[in-house]
Amino acid sequence: MQTKPSTNNTPSPGSAAYAPTDRTIPTRSRERASYDHESVHAILDEAYVCHLGFVRDGAPVVLPTLYGRVGDRLYVHGSTGSRPLRMASASAEEQDPGLPVCLTVTHVDGLVLARSAFHHSINYRSVVVHGTAHQVTDPEEKRLALDALVDHVVPGRAADSRPADAKELAATAVLRLDLNEVSAKARTGGPNDEPEDMDLPHWAGVVPLRKGHDALIPAADLAPGIEVPDYLTGL
Amino acid sequence: MQTKPSTNNTPSPGSAAYAPTDRTIPTRSRERASYDHESVHAILDEAYVCHLGFVRDGAPVVLPTLYGRVGDRLYVHGSTGSRPLRMASASAEEQDPGLPVCLTVTHVDGLVLARSAFHHSINYRSVVVHGTAHQVTDPEEKRLALDALVDHVVPGRAADSRPADAKELAATAVLRLDLNEVSAKARTGGPNDEPEDMDLPHWAGVVPLRKGHDALIPAADLAPGIEVPDYLTGL
Repeated sequence: MQTKPSTNNTPSPGSAAYAPTDRTIPTRSRERASYDHESVHAILDEAYVCHLGFVRDGAPVVLPTLYGRVGDRLYVHGSTGSRPLRMASASAEEQDPGLPVCLTVTHVDGLVLARSAFHHSINYRSVVVHGTAHQVTDPEEKRLALDALVDHVVPGRAADSRPADAKELAATAVLRLDLNEVSAKARTGGPNDEPEDMDLPHWAGVVPLRKGHDALIPAADLAPGIEVPDYLTGL
Repeated sequence: MQTKPSTNNTPSPGSAAYAPTDRTIPTRSRERASYDHESVHAILDEAYVCHLGFVRDGAPVVLPTLYGRVGDRLYVHGSTGSRPLRMASASAEEQDPGLPVCLTVTHVDGLVLARSAFHHSINYRSVVVHGTAHQVTDPEEKRLALDALVDHVVPGRAADSRPADAKELAATAVLRLDLNEVSAKARTGGPNDEPEDMDLPHWAGVVPLRKGHDALIPAADLAPGIEVPDYLTGL
């Protein structure tokens, strides 16, 4: 599993891009930023969790959570009792202004070792989404969102599991965040040392990080005769 | 490199723990939370990047960034021109109230596939730190913090690179966040399916994720004769 298969179910034309805004133009290293749909979606589809930020009593809160993507919409879910979902729900009662959030996804691809401490870095790819999350109330959209959340973890899995029943649906809240104010950022390549440091006796280069998985662990109570499905052997 | 070597340079007694607060007691799955120094430090020391949340113009911002730990203090750094560091700096001029932040670190350890869509999950370990970040102005603390940042990426590396010179130090801002209001959270084990779902024909279990690295990539301009140092061969 070098890279996770894409769940990009609604490919965008290569030329389409999100419009940069004051919040999505970096203050530094602007050459590392990109806005095209393809780059943004690919980074989002490869990660398992995002970090969701919101404001509670004036202070920031950042929580890791699963997410799914359907075209230009991201979905996160949780118990109706969890904090951000209760907050969005409380908002909803007041004419649904939604919950301002920042959703960030990061891949660490390599460790960059320079001759100087100052130029140490990492190679990474990240996406930052700014916007307002809204509770999903339409039952059909909610089902599609929950399928997307399961398929985001393992593409093809939603169709091979028991769908949520009425009680489970009632216990689950789903928030939608539209991809609109969003940017990707990436660093690649080797260290950028100062010319006068080139003769220093320190090793310099990149430690490329690799993702993978170990052997599957079947549930202890898995019934005999149930084979590992194709979508798992293909990981 | 199954797990990253610990950079825990000031081990805490196993019994010491951070005091839970309203913000660090989860609203759900409280049995997954822990507060002991050992668990919190181990999770922090194993990750490469954190997600740092702060509030800008009333809205949340979450950015990935490197960090280092020295005992019960975390450090993040950046250009003096970067947004959170400028914000903390602006605060400093007004009697240093600091910058309220939430710093979160997450490891995704496995994908949990249940018979029901509802019980799909991931195995993870995370740490969430709430607090106020302050600019480091003491030159000696700043140097120690920068060493910790480099050693966090590769333990032992700070001593084998050129330290920052006066110009680089002036261009780098460092923020300190004390570990005080902090919790760890973890999920382990297999799927927790409903008893009535046990006979469904869906494979259930865990896909354990693994971290590793590929062969080192020396800098294109690395001088001949510089060998790979021990702290890299031991990764």
